Amino acid sequence: MELPSKYIENAVEQFAGLPGIGKRTALRLALHILNQSESDVLQFSESFLEMKRRVKHCSECHNVSDQDTCAICSSPKRDRSTICVVEDMRDVIAIENTNQYFGLYHILGGIISPMDGIGPADLNVITLLKKASSEEIREVVFALPTTMEGDTTGFYLYKKLKDTNVKLSAIAKGIAIGDNLEFTDEITLGRSILNRMPYESNLVKY
Amino acid sequence: MELPSKYIENAVEQFAGLPGIGKRTALRLALHILNQSESDVLQFSESFLEMKRRVKHCSECHNVSDQDTCAICSSPKRDRSTICVVEDMRDVIAIENTNQYFGLYHILGGIISPMDGIGPADLNVITLLKKASSEEIREVVFALPTTMEGDTTGFYLYKKLKDTNVKLSAIAKGIAIGDNLEFTDEITLGRSILNRMPYESNLVKY
Repeated sequence: MELPSKYIENAVEQFAGLPGIGKRTALRLALHILNQSESDVLQFSESFLEMKRRVKHCSECHNVSDQDTCAICSSPKRDRSTICVVEDMRDVIAIENTNQYFGLYHILGGIISPMDGIGPADLNVITLLKKASSEEIREVVFALPTTMEGDTTGFYLYKKLKDTNVKLSAIAKGIAIGDNLEFTDEITLGRSILNRMPYESNLVKY
Repeated sequence: MELPSKYIENAVEQFAGLPGIGKRTALRLALHILNQSESDVLQFSESFLEMKRRVKHCSECHNVSDQDTCAICSSPKRDRSTICVVEDMRDVIAIENTNQYFGLYHILGGIISPMDGIGPADLNVITLLKKASSEEIREVVFALPTTMEGDTTGFYLYKKLKDTNVKLSAIAKGIAIGDNLEFTDEITLGRSILNRMPYESNLVKY
């Protein structure tokens, strides 16, 4: 695909460098931008630079934030004895949307993945261990992806934390609410049988 | 979805304003950008501004170009007696990729679409009529989308041009090469029967 302008080519390449955006979509996006007014393009461009330059990380939980301490960590309403360990910001949003968790978070900023060259040293592990050794914390809840990498990360942290006085837990794995058993994959269904729970846990109101 | 930073929110909104990008994808893209180095983000942002500021339109065919006259219009190898009328730059790329057309182009810069408030006055029509009235041009080929809007645009231009000495043609509509008849929609198949061609036209080498 030969483009009639190297500036368009450059913009297309930038778009195509984003995850999940192919060359054809990138061209469509670049032409959309080209048809905008210059002030709109300026606003578009500057939003990314501003984000990169202004966004901080919360000194407590490492979540992105506009302040030095994020809204959750500085809220007096949160239960400060529980920490939920997640991979990144999107997991915090997902869990907050459930309205079922009122503790604090700890954002690892990634997940152990030897394939991508990410080891424990690249994650926010040391601050987690430090927090867990404080008197205030009573429970650490792992809410990590149910993938090979998520399990590896969880097990690594479990080994580091198991000799502390902190209670360690992980979010329940099993069949999704509303799912039919016949369409659930064998591994999930098998795990949900192994991890069967007292019937009373079914009586939760949604 | 409440985001922990208004700068991220702003970047997400900018991405979500692009065609075909939803809120969730926009967040994924924004976080990808946030994880880049500042110099990479600078390069990303500036590519769009530079494109907007530097890209010109060819004074002959209205295609985007880095020069005042685009590479096709200034090429001595092109047949200057034929003009192919297309909607936008992407159609030029598509036709050039076929290696079957050696004339010039004329980019309308859009298509008549009352729903979007686009009328003939918003398109590059006057320059096309002027070109068609010159001695040099012998044929105008319409290569417009086979949609209601494309047909409307074609018919509008046909009425404007039919009393000139220029031969008017349109790219063939019919079943795609490699398609099975049973999977072809009725309208296309019906048109391909109405517009049946001398058998010899089948003997083209690809």
